[in-house]
Amino acid sequence: MKFCSECAQPVSLLIPPDDNRPRFVCEHCGTIHYQNPKMVIGSIPLWDADGESRVLLCRRAIEPRYGYWTLPAGFMENDETTDEAAMRETMEEAGARVELHELFSLLNVPHVHQVHMFYRATLLDLDYSAGVESLEVRLFSESEIPWNEIAFPTVSHTLKQFFADLNRIKSEGGCYRLHTRDLRKPMRQDT
Amino acid sequence: MKFCSECAQPVSLLIPPDDNRPRFVCEHCGTIHYQNPKMVIGSIPLWDADGESRVLLCRRAIEPRYGYWTLPAGFMENDETTDEAAMRETMEEAGARVELHELFSLLNVPHVHQVHMFYRATLLDLDYSAGVESLEVRLFSESEIPWNEIAFPTVSHTLKQFFADLNRIKSEGGCYRLHTRDLRKPMRQDT
Ligand SMILES: [Zn+2]
Ligand SMILES: [Zn+2]
Repeated sequence: MKFCSECAQPVSLLIPPDDNRPRFVCEHCGTIHYQNPKMVIGSIPLWDADGESRVLLCRRAIEPRYGYWTLPAGFMENDETTDEAAMRETMEEAGARVELHELFSLLNVPHVHQVHMFYRATLLDLDYSAGVESLEVRLFSESEIPWNEIAFPTVSHTLKQFFADLNRIKSEGGCYRLHTRDLRKPMRQDT
Repeated sequence: MKFCSECAQPVSLLIPPDDNRPRFVCEHCGTIHYQNPKMVIGSIPLWDADGESRVLLCRRAIEPRYGYWTLPAGFMENDETTDEAAMRETMEEAGARVELHELFSLLNVPHVHQVHMFYRATLLDLDYSAGVESLEVRLFSESEIPWNEIAFPTVSHTLKQFFADLNRIKSEGGCYRLHTRDLRKPMRQDT
């Protein structure tokens, strides 16, 4: 940020009175331009049929991580709720209708100022199709997931925890729980 | 937003190519200025002694809702995690040291572009004290809570759900669960 978005004068980086960290401040009109983390919200669309549990992944048609696989997810918008964001992104990226369940994972990615959240979801039909930000969309069983071609550590972590819970529930019963984790390092594939 | 924060030229509100909603766009330098919801993160500091469960509330020394009671909470900052934000706000507003537990509530407040989250926490000692944004800080048992003087519906809702879970766990066992809710109407006291 170089200029004030209210009055177009140059901004200064300084600690305002009663604050304890540097902000972009306009000394002309007095506006303090706060910058805060953003939420990336998505779903884990599950299709359970013929004794097999499969999840819907999208292959990215955009940078970063062009060509890599991800769960449908994207930046939450103003005027919507976290659930609405998850369903909207699932429709936009995968053309998929889902019934949304509870929040499954919450992952902090502080070095990029993001919090990622994924909701469990049930895919309602097989009429999905790649949106403009996806090259292709398809269902993967746990053994088919291309672990070395997953776009983001938050997605790898969510998928691993999801299948762990799913397998445990199938064998022992019980229920899903909320998984939280901090992913502090630069984006890597080995988390 | 009136001017581009990168080049100081006036911005236009228009739908960029491959997008589906109006954004503030700088037609001079090409920057798209996205605006996204913010996270407000806090804690529910519990002090359990002499058979009584009490939570720590702060009376606000700032607008909005000057003089009303709230759980310690505030805007999440860049470069921190949700847990760190909850602990920092608890220290800044209530001067209180807590051990943080799992996420207890997630509340969408879409008309103000906010998501509020509260973590369960155990107060570690009684050396709390009002920070600059608080007039006073004190412990309240469930029956003492000033329900008509709570600052925000997200705080009322979180406190009600918290004591409901606490009472159920004391009488029947079991555990806390994540409470999610959308609070769509303008801020009111009756939620
Ligand atoms: Zn200004
Ligand atoms: Zn510009």
